[in-house]
Amino acid sequence: MGHGGGGKLSEELVEHLFRPAFDSQGEMCDAAVFDVNAGRLAYSTDSYVVHPLFFPGGDIGKLAVHGTVNDLAMMGAKPLVMSVGFILEEGFELEALGRIAQSMGEAARRSGVKIVTGDTKVVDRGHGHGVYINTSGIGCLPQGRKLGPERARGGDAILVSGPLGNHGMAIMSLREGLEFESTIESDTACLSPLVELLMEDPEKVRVLRDPTRGGLASSLNEIAKSSGVGMMLEERHLPVDPDVKGACEFLGLDPLYVANEGKLVAIVAPEAADGLLAKLHSHPLGRGAARIGFCTEERSGMVALKTAFGGTRVVDTQVGEQLPRIC
Amino acid sequence: MGHGGGGKLSEELVEHLFRPAFDSQGEMCDAAVFDVNAGRLAYSTDSYVVHPLFFPGGDIGKLAVHGTVNDLAMMGAKPLVMSVGFILEEGFELEALGRIAQSMGEAARRSGVKIVTGDTKVVDRGHGHGVYINTSGIGCLPQGRKLGPERARGGDAILVSGPLGNHGMAIMSLREGLEFESTIESDTACLSPLVELLMEDPEKVRVLRDPTRGGLASSLNEIAKSSGVGMMLEERHLPVDPDVKGACEFLGLDPLYVANEGKLVAIVAPEAADGLLAKLHSHPLGRGAARIGFCTEERSGMVALKTAFGGTRVVDTQVGEQLPRIC
Repeated sequence: MGHGGGGKLSEELVEHLFRPAFDSQGEMCDAAVFDVNAGRLAYSTDSYVVHPLFFPGGDIGKLAVHGTVNDLAMMGAKPLVMSVGFILEEGFELEALGRIAQSMGEAARRSGVKIVTGDTKVVDRGHGHGVYINTSGIGCLPQGRKLGPERARGGDAILVSGPLGNHGMAIMSLREGLEFESTIESDTACLSPLVELLMEDPEKVRVLRDPTRGGLASSLNEIAKSSGVGMMLEERHLPVDPDVKGACEFLGLDPLYVANEGKLVAIVAPEAADGLLAKLHSHPLGRGAARIGFCTEERSGMVALKTAFGGTRVVDTQVGEQLPRIC
Repeated sequence: MGHGGGGKLSEELVEHLFRPAFDSQGEMCDAAVFDVNAGRLAYSTDSYVVHPLFFPGGDIGKLAVHGTVNDLAMMGAKPLVMSVGFILEEGFELEALGRIAQSMGEAARRSGVKIVTGDTKVVDRGHGHGVYINTSGIGCLPQGRKLGPERARGGDAILVSGPLGNHGMAIMSLREGLEFESTIESDTACLSPLVELLMEDPEKVRVLRDPTRGGLASSLNEIAKSSGVGMMLEERHLPVDPDVKGACEFLGLDPLYVANEGKLVAIVAPEAADGLLAKLHSHPLGRGAARIGFCTEERSGMVALKTAFGGTRVVDTQVGEQLPRIC
């Protein structure tokens, strides 16, 4: 409990664990100060309660950095600075916390964002689950970028940057102790490089979204409702890795609803779709990108899927939680 | 669990509970966008795990808004926007969540700050404690304000804006089921108005701090170490309400180490101390302000107290946690 009390133990945690991991310089105040140019800022927050804390391809810390960076990137913003708040459960091993902090520091450096302010609280044993992490982030929005879920138009193409469902199935496989033929890894990644590639032609990009909780289905439903368009997806064009497909079939899950942590969906002008898809393919994070469907003036607010058998079904928003504590 | 899943139940929570409470307008995206002028921004985050969630004088939500606003104010910044992240325990009553959200909205309006982005996660029963809240905030730093824990000088006066220990003892009395002659209320409050009063003469104010976790003793020790000055306090000048004093004596606690949530300590130039104290007295939040001691070139990094009996004792930083989960 002492490490969250604001006394000497808190100080030691900051000095010996967080500061080296986050490359923090200067005085550690309760608030950080930084300079900005006049303009538009984007601002986002997310809490992370993923269980288990460590999983193939990542951990809660990496997820927390990428998640907030990606929320900013989906607005077209370049991430600048981040905050981190830890809620530790009494008795949580400092060694594990150290690994998580290291992982956050590394993810932040790779994402080009600085962790500038933070906070640690400790709750009594039995009232947490190891560690929960909140991150918030600030990014600057370059001029001329206008992205928003209300900007999709009939005829627009729908692109995804790679195979669906890897994060969710990595967690589920581990949690359920399922043994598949190979290990599914989380796709957690910073999507800023892909966004900057797409933004070379900002006029042609209407909406960007990272389909995390609730999967691609939830993101597309939100966009369809905000924009008042319908959407038609082609099942045979949806990229899904064979392992993920197998695991989904085994567990009775639909990859359209499974969380991703390093994929984006882009609604783009139809005439630019092929060029933007080629740009995605040129980057390691977008190698598996695909054009999966289009927007239409018909069936406003509704997402539909042309199945592999030639039928059509509605892809609705899920009501509750398909996979609890996935991020 | 469904309310944290990013699906329809999450959407309803945002639309029917958070949006009205926070006066949110426009599209609710994963990130908010706002304009700034060129200059310096302050940025801060804190998580709140206080138990119980409701207490005389406030609740976890009010605390979470004031806490982040105050961290910004202590840098001399004017709070602009805030983020809120909720970690809910499965089964937590929506009615209680609604009261907390209302209380946050009201505290934000009174503090002149807008809640612009947020997030909700749900953890399974037994892995939380009702609700934990993280807030982060951004403020703008007007030119010419230079505050920092390293700026105290020998001779500087030490002011506090009012009686010490009220928040901590409000929580402790409630938690321990102690019955004192009257109810002690938390002092949770937005300190920005007091800061703006003091900042009419920014050259004369060296350091501002809100002595929360760890109390006044911890804040002063941090400042003394950062500035390389000693500090001498006068016990008879320390303002402590009689109820709080009684409760502290009963529980064997020292009000110097008990958390405050609506008090500030100001290290100011000696020639300006009387004028600034008068300014504090002119505001309802500073009515109980007092000049409690001074900084000295001697005993660098050490805080000492002249006791009511004429002796002197060292006021050290506490090692661990005197009062767990006080904020």
